[in-house]
Amino acid sequence: AVAMPAIAQSSPEVKWRCTSSFPKSLDTIFGAGELMARSVAEITDGKFQIQMFAAGEIVPGLQALDATQNKTVEMCHSASYYYVGKDPTFALGTAVPFGLNTRMMNAWFQFGSGLTLLNEFYKKYGVVMLPGGNTGGQMGGWFRKEIKSVADLKGLKMRIAGMGGQVLARLGVVPQQLAGGDIYPALEKGTIDAAEWVGPYDDEKLGLYKVAQYYYFPGWWEGCAALNFFVNDEKLAELPKAYRAALVTAAARANESMLASYDYKNPPAIENLVKAGTQLRRYPDDVMDAAYKESSALYEEIGAKNPDFKKIYEDMKAYRGPAYQWWQIAEYTYDNFMIRARSRG
Amino acid sequence: AVAMPAIAQSSPEVKWRCTSSFPKSLDTIFGAGELMARSVAEITDGKFQIQMFAAGEIVPGLQALDATQNKTVEMCHSASYYYVGKDPTFALGTAVPFGLNTRMMNAWFQFGSGLTLLNEFYKKYGVVMLPGGNTGGQMGGWFRKEIKSVADLKGLKMRIAGMGGQVLARLGVVPQQLAGGDIYPALEKGTIDAAEWVGPYDDEKLGLYKVAQYYYFPGWWEGCAALNFFVNDEKLAELPKAYRAALVTAAARANESMLASYDYKNPPAIENLVKAGTQLRRYPDDVMDAAYKESSALYEEIGAKNPDFKKIYEDMKAYRGPAYQWWQIAEYTYDNFMIRARSRG
Repeated sequence: AVAMPAIAQSSPEVKWRCTSSFPKSLDTIFGAGELMARSVAEITDGKFQIQMFAAGEIVPGLQALDATQNKTVEMCHSASYYYVGKDPTFALGTAVPFGLNTRMMNAWFQFGSGLTLLNEFYKKYGVVMLPGGNTGGQMGGWFRKEIKSVADLKGLKMRIAGMGGQVLARLGVVPQQLAGGDIYPALEKGTIDAAEWVGPYDDEKLGLYKVAQYYYFPGWWEGCAALNFFVNDEKLAELPKAYRAALVTAAARANESMLASYDYKNPPAIENLVKAGTQLRRYPDDVMDAAYKESSALYEEIGAKNPDFKKIYEDMKAYRGPAYQWWQIAEYTYDNFMIRARSRG
Repeated sequence: AVAMPAIAQSSPEVKWRCTSSFPKSLDTIFGAGELMARSVAEITDGKFQIQMFAAGEIVPGLQALDATQNKTVEMCHSASYYYVGKDPTFALGTAVPFGLNTRMMNAWFQFGSGLTLLNEFYKKYGVVMLPGGNTGGQMGGWFRKEIKSVADLKGLKMRIAGMGGQVLARLGVVPQQLAGGDIYPALEKGTIDAAEWVGPYDDEKLGLYKVAQYYYFPGWWEGCAALNFFVNDEKLAELPKAYRAALVTAAARANESMLASYDYKNPPAIENLVKAGTQLRRYPDDVMDAAYKESSALYEEIGAKNPDFKKIYEDMKAYRGPAYQWWQIAEYTYDNFMIRARSRG
């Protein structure tokens, strides 16, 4: 018998399963998981294989984190804020109303304390988080009637999840939880009056413009939405060092690729929607101001009872101020000029 | 004798050299090259080693592309627009005045035709380009006197490279080429009246605020500046497939990491500069409008003689319009609200 050479021992065959919280029809988000898996396979010569599963194939979408924690799968591709029912701190890994924009979120994750603090928190759930894409700034949802002031929100039934729903509830909205596929019929029948999903590219595919005319912006509860890879921490520790590096590097590639994909697909989609009769509306100032005020009050209330939330939220907020002070100088004034130049032709 | 196992043959020891166009003191840019090299080493278990060299260690910074083309090194980390002297088309791989912002640049590279078209062009120079980081939107430079209109630019000696310099020359500026280390003494002695470098973090380190009081924005000639890895195409083709994938994936990680790093380091730097007495000034509207007009005229002139430039510039421009139309809806109005909310406290 010939002893296995050292090199073979350091490159064992490893097969993992990654369950996504998303259906394949959300091709930009699901595609980021596929890119991560494909990159890992390519750079390990096919030795480390991660098979992607759509929501429902192994577990339902919202059980992806639990399935990772209990080792049904080694990892998942999900959105941290789906798990606010366990602890509101989960919101901070994806989006909170009036949080960071996309570039700031990546900066806070990678160069601020964001990822370190969040991973200290996620340790309680036996997982390690790697940033797994971003949708960019989202839209503020579809409405069957115009919203001219806070008063128009009173009693409105709106499909909206997470903390945006909690804030809107404080302004009189009755938040509804509905899966993506149930939004269209509910809006059509008038069971709900409004619904938010993602942005032009994904919203166009759901066909919401056919049953609600007014498309509001900005999506102040998701100035960006970070997706996340959650990896079981024991399974991660068992990986050869090179495979861990492959996974981290491939996740970073997927993280930037998803954003670029949305930034390329959303522009033609918003044009299509407007051509199809969609009316774009900016949220009235009093709605924005009231939502901002209620969000701050909500964070105070949560933070008073939840030290994890308080610590991580305060850290994010401490970066947000200087980050926006800088943003308004070079980035914002450049964009401002380019927007005006375009509209002048 | 024991035959080498197949796995060892597919994982040969490979040692490459990557020459950077930048000094180690530009730690954010140079660091992206180091991250790329470190990631490649980690995910190949140290089998594929890329050693980074600062500008001047092997060849001067502006000869990085030539050194890659003639195989003095296998690859370099540089900025495409340093090579506009060979062909103005090189500008499009990094930045042209009034070009895309950072996220749009990544989207155009990866999901538009950007990278495909540019790599068709780079083939003439025997290299393949991988995006290698971005500075984000830059500042518009340091001036010893205020600029209140286009008339104030007349005869001004300004350190500025590339196409921004060509456009400013059409507005009366006398562009000067100076290496980073020569800017401070030239501004101090009054040999030059103005100078642009990068943004707050890098500019603070050069100390320019001590010799010029007015810091202008936006940096309309670099709404973003993409850095680039150029890889000798024959050397790339010789790599085992897994190593090629490792390199591409590691480059993508470096690409997003550099931006996040700048987005984290610039906010405190701009605060420091303002505390040290720097006066922030927005470029007057007539300067912005004249620069935009002259840039468009310049692109027409170049395009009339250079089909590569024309084809790639037109492709970029065809995306820029719809991209900014979408940008102004969700992203820009969100940023607008957050900027106002911050200044209200």
